[in-house]
Amino acid sequence: MSEVLVIGSLAYDAISTPAGKVDRTLGGSANYFSLAASMWSQVRVVGVVGEDYEASALKMLESRKVDLSGVQKQAGKTFFWKGRYEGSLNEAITEVTDLNVFESFNPVIPDQFKDSKFVFLANIAPHLQLEVLSQVKEPLFVGMDTMNFWIQSALPKLKEVLAKVDVVLINETEAQAITGGHNAIQAAERLSKMGEKSVVIKRGEYGFVLYHPQDGFHILPAFPLPTVVDPTGAGDSFAGAFFGYLASLNRKPSGLDLRQACKLGTLTASFTIQDFGVKRLSELTQNELLRRGEVYKNVVEMRS
Amino acid sequence: MSEVLVIGSLAYDAISTPAGKVDRTLGGSANYFSLAASMWSQVRVVGVVGEDYEASALKMLESRKVDLSGVQKQAGKTFFWKGRYEGSLNEAITEVTDLNVFESFNPVIPDQFKDSKFVFLANIAPHLQLEVLSQVKEPLFVGMDTMNFWIQSALPKLKEVLAKVDVVLINETEAQAITGGHNAIQAAERLSKMGEKSVVIKRGEYGFVLYHPQDGFHILPAFPLPTVVDPTGAGDSFAGAFFGYLASLNRKPSGLDLRQACKLGTLTASFTIQDFGVKRLSELTQNELLRRGEVYKNVVEMRS
Repeated sequence: MSEVLVIGSLAYDAISTPAGKVDRTLGGSANYFSLAASMWSQVRVVGVVGEDYEASALKMLESRKVDLSGVQKQAGKTFFWKGRYEGSLNEAITEVTDLNVFESFNPVIPDQFKDSKFVFLANIAPHLQLEVLSQVKEPLFVGMDTMNFWIQSALPKLKEVLAKVDVVLINETEAQAITGGHNAIQAAERLSKMGEKSVVIKRGEYGFVLYHPQDGFHILPAFPLPTVVDPTGAGDSFAGAFFGYLASLNRKPSGLDLRQACKLGTLTASFTIQDFGVKRLSELTQNELLRRGEVYKNVVEMRS
Repeated sequence: MSEVLVIGSLAYDAISTPAGKVDRTLGGSANYFSLAASMWSQVRVVGVVGEDYEASALKMLESRKVDLSGVQKQAGKTFFWKGRYEGSLNEAITEVTDLNVFESFNPVIPDQFKDSKFVFLANIAPHLQLEVLSQVKEPLFVGMDTMNFWIQSALPKLKEVLAKVDVVLINETEAQAITGGHNAIQAAERLSKMGEKSVVIKRGEYGFVLYHPQDGFHILPAFPLPTVVDPTGAGDSFAGAFFGYLASLNRKPSGLDLRQACKLGTLTASFTIQDFGVKRLSELTQNELLRRGEVYKNVVEMRS
């Protein structure tokens, strides 16, 4: 088993959905990612929190053997995001983004993290993603996420990151925005050519598109749920399970490994969205995942 | 093998998509349906055409053993639809709908059609769907489609039809409009309860959701295509292959039969959208379908 290094946000979120609202709940890509990945592997986190960040949030990760020695505590407030979802819940409408301590964040990788073989660069500024990656000695498998803000404001730098990673996990609209592709299929093929990489396009309720340069397309729907409480963190939970599983195999992932990782990603995300914030995810067991995996198999199997 | 009876439109379409445009091409649900269904079963058509309807269009169907004795020829012009697609091609924007001879259409089922076991009521006025169904003696398996226009203008009548059919094939937004469901999963469950029926929700590039009261959900994506020329008729091609295949089995369809029918439906539709109008569909062979089926299997198979 290898360790997974993740750089991302540790945050507080205010979220409103048709199912209700929460004013201050634990969030951020690194939290969702770490909770999901730690079901399969040891996780190392690089990030920053403010003085208001609660000790219980750090303890929750530590109790799962997540190594937080890359998390800096700085004067000021923790990153805060406020958003709401309407209708089909497919898109978050951002109301407030307070970068706070994240604004001046200068990521430093602790020496003992520099041998990490699996690295996930969550959705942060592309120049920080590059900065982190340059400090890891011999990564075996590197992934990244990004968002519209960076596509619009830092595309050249973003393309530098894209050229250096083995897999990009990205939302459908963002994949189309980067590539100009008219649909997820075209976008995946084009992204893959930016460095001969694998691509995972996240489609919310429609599931995922995996494209592997040799193995081709693998496309499946999300696990069917009649009710979604809060879609926040679905993508980061997917990425966490995906990377945690791949690191547990401790080898350069094959196309088949990626298929299995996507299945675990989509199943894990299906639990996350059943409650607000990290609540459901933090209680999830491997047994529950396996049981839902059996149902999922019956949903997608053609049986002929 | 049983015959499939379809009532639907025979039409001319003007279509504009990012890939180009056509000013007058053969269209209508009954044409797409019959071409797809006739690959598997004998098809009987009930419909109406105007004086301008070309003999070659009728001959194309007759050459595939489609029985057109239920097609009336009336004074006036054939049904005409003009529409365009933009961006992701997921929704048609209607520019012109000239009902023409369809306006006063009074469907009469020829005596020799009244023993039909498989019946598809394509997207026409709900009172006409009921009228046709009442003339069929002992149908074994009845399906229907509908559209927003009827949901808004004739919902009570539409619900009468829904209560009488064995399967409804319907677009995602329309399924949500009828049921008030927030997503396809909720909508499928609610539609199914309107008469203990199976439901197929058509999701365009995202594929389909099949819900069977006993077998549960079966959900798969569309066949991956980087370029779509014209999505017109995809749903009717799906329905045609779906019903044609089920009729070829000549039994009350099981949940597994429906899964296989959906696979053939989605594969058939993937050919239709590769050219304008019925062009590609009318040239399609079973061999091409089977070959694409092998690729599709590799796309959706988890292999673990």
